[in-house]
This record gives sequence, structure tokens and C-alpha cells, in this order.
Amino acid sequence: MTTALKQPHHVVIVGAGFGGLEAAFGLAGAPVRITLIDRRNHHLFQPLLYQVATASLATSEIAWPIRYLLRDRPEVTTLFANVNGVDAEGKRVLLEDGDTISYDTLVLATGARHAYFGHDEWEPFAPGLKTLEDATTLRRRILVAFERAERETDPARRAALLTFVIIGAGPTGVEMAGTIADLAKDTLPPDFRNIDTHKTRVVLVEAGPRVLAGFPEDLSAYALRSLQELGVEVVLGQPVTECAIDGVVYGGNRLEARTIVWAAGVRASRAAEWLNAPADRAYRLKVEPDLTVPGHPDIFAVGDTVTIAGPDGNPVPGIAPAAKQQGRYVAALIKARLSGGTLPPFRYKHAGSLAQIGKRKAVIDFGRIKLRGNLAWWIWGIAHIYFLIGLRNRLSVALSWLWIHARDQRAARLITQGSSKVTG
Amino acid sequence: MTTALKQPHHVVIVGAGFGGLEAAFGLAGAPVRITLIDRRNHHLFQPLLYQVATASLATSEIAWPIRYLLRDRPEVTTLFANVNGVDAEGKRVLLEDGDTISYDTLVLATGARHAYFGHDEWEPFAPGLKTLEDATTLRRRILVAFERAERETDPARRAALLTFVIIGAGPTGVEMAGTIADLAKDTLPPDFRNIDTHKTRVVLVEAGPRVLAGFPEDLSAYALRSLQELGVEVVLGQPVTECAIDGVVYGGNRLEARTIVWAAGVRASRAAEWLNAPADRAYRLKVEPDLTVPGHPDIFAVGDTVTIAGPDGNPVPGIAPAAKQQGRYVAALIKARLSGGTLPPFRYKHAGSLAQIGKRKAVIDFGRIKLRGNLAWWIWGIAHIYFLIGLRNRLSVALSWLWIHARDQRAARLITQGSSKVTG
Repeated sequence: MTTALKQPHHVVIVGAGFGGLEAAFGLAGAPVRITLIDRRNHHLFQPLLYQVATASLATSEIAWPIRYLLRDRPEVTTLFANVNGVDAEGKRVLLEDGDTISYDTLVLATGARHAYFGHDEWEPFAPGLKTLEDATTLRRRILVAFERAERETDPARRAALLTFVIIGAGPTGVEMAGTIADLAKDTLPPDFRNIDTHKTRVVLVEAGPRVLAGFPEDLSAYALRSLQELGVEVVLGQPVTECAIDGVVYGGNRLEARTIVWAAGVRASRAAEWLNAPADRAYRLKVEPDLTVPGHPDIFAVGDTVTIAGPDGNPVPGIAPAAKQQGRYVAALIKARLSGGTLPPFRYKHAGSLAQIGKRKAVIDFGRIKLRGNLAWWIWGIAHIYFLIGLRNRLSVALSWLWIHARDQRAARLITQGSSKVTG
Repeated sequence: MTTALKQPHHVVIVGAGFGGLEAAFGLAGAPVRITLIDRRNHHLFQPLLYQVATASLATSEIAWPIRYLLRDRPEVTTLFANVNGVDAEGKRVLLEDGDTISYDTLVLATGARHAYFGHDEWEPFAPGLKTLEDATTLRRRILVAFERAERETDPARRAALLTFVIIGAGPTGVEMAGTIADLAKDTLPPDFRNIDTHKTRVVLVEAGPRVLAGFPEDLSAYALRSLQELGVEVVLGQPVTECAIDGVVYGGNRLEARTIVWAAGVRASRAAEWLNAPADRAYRLKVEPDLTVPGHPDIFAVGDTVTIAGPDGNPVPGIAPAAKQQGRYVAALIKARLSGGTLPPFRYKHAGSLAQIGKRKAVIDFGRIKLRGNLAWWIWGIAHIYFLIGLRNRLSVALSWLWIHARDQRAARLITQGSSKVTG
């Protein structure tokens, strides 16, 4: 299918994450037609993905069919397809199935995935958390570890089954560690007979000197104390040097553990490779101040797949609000260009950083205002519910959280896939 | 692990479906210890499984961790394990991993799975609906068919992608057909640009002379008319003679279809084989009037894995209320025996038959009272919410149904697993 229509201007957006979707939203009313391509049929609210991995939320509570989000926009066509290249000279996007899609303007919002810094062989033992499947895989591993421990009679093997290692103490690592600790200490104890799930070890291993390195030092220190109060063992300044099926090595010591979670780093998508464009070590495209790819004024890139300096000189962080601001900027610039104008360079406004620590605390850095503890948790919760799309999911997530807080009951404790040996 | 404890009486229940769980509930307060074994970690509310397959409900809305349901019963141990045999002489259950569990009384509640009447080779093309994985697999197939049709330019291939064949017009087949029709006519149309999902063909093929053969003839006739009003093409008196990747054959004619759903029959688990006990053609154990296995007074069997005549001479139907009554009876009889008594034979009380037809109608057969239409749908809906376990899932399902009815929005339109080709 070669799209040969010349009129109206055709914007192709690759990726329906926060950046791509916001670009599509921002182009409402513009004299364009839009093709939005994603290899998934759903937009994912990644900030809460760790709650699916820890059985707190259902998959459908944090994901929406992309088509549904754009149903009222007849000029937008959603394609469920895999992009595997860009022909910048021919102004075409190449799909894996051989089709090509011509564009007038291209927006690459292709995101990032977890990266193992040259140790891809660790991935089977230490899965990361980027997709719904990643989350249900982790959920299965965590829940199966408790099930196996319940039936294990050898004390050493039982201890290894009840040891959970999280590698990387950024927001995802901190949130995973705190939530697994809650699960083990509050949700599971009454359900098991042979094991005491209070004895679960949750070990958070960080190569750098502190947890939540992107936050001010006093909030990092608070997060550290809060994690320790939850029973999480925090190991700082120790890079992991080996991951295997039965444990990890750091600081020269081996820790036997049957469940390892990778939260230590990401790499950008292959967009830089597609364009043979300059990128940083994490493969992030180095974009111009207007978010175009150098040498390609008709190709924009936004979100986790780019690197650009913020007003403070530091790189813009790889978080949802940054991707949304970039998507919105690109939409506005495309509109301006179509009416013969232009816009000043993209300028990132940092609204704040948030991280949940266990089920009743959070840290928030709004710049001048810093919050921590239970009040911060309330703001964290309300902000996340606010940013969910649609009343239905807001009600549903609020209901799930109410049950976690009031009854320590996590609704999505399902072991699915991989448990399907059938005896019948 | 050979369980050698003699005191107290040890009841082993295999299977935590409706029958097995009810037996465990019914034994509350009895002087026994109980081991409940299931190869899943969750109890599944199978009557609503078709709603997961059609994106109406989330998996976690109809499934509960088994351990959680029995958390307040310290005498109950839940094992997440596969049973693959029974040593009736040694009074031991054999687990796939080599362990054995000794019992004083055994309750087999091992259920049924879909059966292809000697055509197991059809299974990959016409999956059935018994587990959560079955439901998410069907959901993926149904949603992917619409996605592929949207991108397909060949009219014949597009028509095949938009043709859904359901084989078997019992309650599951009727409910699947009606709900796929609703999905295509009410939920999806505004979301697609290249296809008109109103043109979806839903074909329900039944070998027998009428739909819902277990219901009175007038309700069958009403269900047939209602399905036809929803646009479902109902084919009666035609057994399917071939299933393949690209279609089905019935009545000598080939129908091109890319999605086929098997709702035509079930076979019991291997419990009869384990015991080398008499069974019917569908492998259902022929049990004694007190639900024991002939020659094994210490082994009970309940639910879909047994066949027994009801008070009207017909076999007790394979539905949840029948399994629950049997589980309850077995619990009562075990209690009676422990205090030196016994009970009269099991007597099935048919409370009623219900089936939903599309999102606003149902048929109900309460024996003397027969209901159909919208009022029946309300009773159907209230009954199903009532039989869900726990306030949280009741609220959650009610919320999901409210959105379907008020907005035609189905919350769980997620394509997961198998779409995981990664471009990044």
C-alpha cells in the first residue's frame, strides 16, 4: 500500500505512548490527515505498570485501545503494525510486513526498552518492566515463587524462593521493592500455611550512592529510611556483576534469589539507527532545539527515544510529562508551519518528580516545594488517578486502591500463562 | 512428601472449581484437616468467561486466588500443583512432580475441558473456552481479526477476517455469538476507518435442531429470533465436518472464516482413567447415588467430571449450581460419617437455567416460571453479580457492565501475548 494522496498534509506518528498520543491530540483541528502506527493495540499508562507486576491493578485498568482514544477524530487512522525502518529520502515509513506509508511530516515517538549494558544474557533471569506482558510475566514469577516456597522443604531453597532482588533504585525499582514488601507483609501472610511470608527478603541493589538519584538528597534519604522501615534491604554503591537463574553477584558476594527484577536502565528504540542519525550512548537521538532530527526538518522525535538539554542544562528526564510536552510542542509547530509560521525552540517545564514508597508514603519534588510521607502519597494517588484517561478507569483504579488500603486485598493475584500444564 | 499424620481425618480435594470449593466451604467446623489441590492459583467464575473472551470484563474480575478464599480456615492447606493420578489402594494422590499426598477421604472435582469428538486436530483452529488463557487467546484472535481486516485490501480476505464462526449453540455458543455481534455493531464502528464493522458476519452453527437445546422450545425459539435480530446467522441441523485455518465446512459447503470458536462439547477430566472406574462416552465417572466412585466408598467425585441421573431421570446438567450442590452434599456426608451417621442419596434440585443473548436480553427457565427479554436480562445480571465472590468484584463487574450499557465501551480490549514482536 503506497499512500499517494497529496492533499491534505499527511502526518505519520510512530508510537502511541505519551508523546505520540499527545502529538495526535494536539493536531486536532489542523488541516492534516494523521496515521498513528503502533505495534500494540493499546496505549499504556507506564507509571503504574509496577502495580500490575505486583498484583495491585488489572492490565485493563492502565491500558486503553488506541483506536478508542481517537474514535472521534475521523482524520486519524490507527494502524496496528510494526515499523522497522524509515526511508527519509523517499519520505516513507517501512513496515515489517512489506507495506510502506508515505508521510509529509514524520513524528517518531518510539520509546525505550530496558537495557542490560552489554549483558543481554541476563534478560531471562532479570526481566524488566516496559510492557503489559513484562508486567504479567513478573507477576507470575513473584506469585509462583511464594507458591513454590510453600511446598519447598529444604530451608536454603525456600529462603532463595523468598528472596526478591530488584536491581536499580530509580523510581521503578523503589516502587517495585516497596510494593513487594507490602505484598509479603500485609497481603499474603494469612493465605499460607507452611511459610511465614513476613520472612521474605526484598533486596534493592543500586550501583550509585543513593536511591532516587533524580530527587534532592533529603528526599533520597527519606526514601531510604522508609524502605528500610518496610523491611527492604537497600544495598548502595554496588553494581551487580552477575545475574543467573539462582541469584545475583554484587560486591563479590553471591545472593541466592529465585526472583530478580531489572530496573536499572533503558535504551532508546532503533529510531536513530533507522535514520543513521547522531545518538548518545543509550541510542537516544540527539535532536535539534525544535525536536527535529538533524538534517531532517520534516522528521520530529519525542519522548524516551530522544535526548535534549532542559533549561537547567541537564537532559530532559525520561518521564511521561516530558514526552507529553514534547508531543504537544511538535503538534503546535506542525500547525504553525502549515500556516507559514514557526515557533521558538522547545522549552521543557519540569512540573515535579513523584515516587511511591510502599502503600502509604511517597516523595514529591515540585522544585520549591518538597513533600514526603502520607500527604505526599495522597497527592501522588490523586495525580495518578487524574492522569488516567476516562472516568471508568479512574473509578476502577480508585476502587482497587481502596481495597488495598482498607483490606490489604490485591485484586489481580493471578498466575496466568506458563502454568497451563493440563491434567484433565 | 508423604503425609503420615493420622489425626485428624484428612480430606484431600482435587480441583477448586465450584464443586471442590463448595466442599471445602461445607467442611468448615468439621474435625478434619483439608488439602485443596489445584493446578491454577485461582478459582474461576466460568459462567462469565465468555465476557473476558469478548473484551467485556477483565480477567481479575472473574477470578480469585484460591488461598485468599480460604485464608480464614487454618485447617485448610492449598497446594498449587498438578495431580496426575490416584493410588486408591495406598490412599494417595500422585502429583506430577513426584510428591504424593495421603488421604482418608478424597474428593475429585477435576472438571471438564472442551472436546473435539475425535478431531483434536481442530483445536488450533477452533479454540474452546475453559480457562483464563483460553479467554485471552480468543480475545486476541477476535481483536486481531478486526485489526487485520482494517489493513486488508483484498475484499475476499477482508470478508474472511470479518467472519466469526461459533460452533455449538448451547449457552456458551449463544452468549459468544450475541456478544461478538454487539462488539461489532455497537462498540467498534466509530474506531475503524477502512472497514465497516457492521458488515461483520457472526455465524452460529449447531448440529442439533435448535439453539439452547436444554431450554423449553418456546425459549429456544425466542433465543433464535433474538440472535437473528442481532444479525447472527444461525445454522441448525448441520454438524461441522471440517475446521481449518481459513474456514469451516458444514452441509457440504465451505465458509471462509479466520476466527472460529469451539463451544460444541466437553469431555471430563482424566479422573475415571486414574481410578480405572466406569465412565460414559464423555469420560464422566458414573458415580453411586451418594456421589462415591463405585468400589471406593472413600472417594467422592462431583461436578463436570461425573454423570448422575437427576430426579427427572435426565442427567444432572454440567452447570455451576449442580457442582455446588454436589460439593455441599459431599461435605455434609463426610461430616455425617465422621459422627457415625450417613445421609440419604444426593438429590439434585434444578434452580433454573439462564442464558444471555446480546447485551439486553436473556432467557430464564425456572421450571414453572419462564422469562425472556429485558426483565430476564436484569435478573440474569443481578444473579451473576450476586454469585460473584466479594464486594470488590461485584462493584467492579457492575461498573464494567454499566459502561457497556451506557457507552458501548468495553474495558478490556487488549491484545496481549503473541503481539510482542519488538521493533525497539
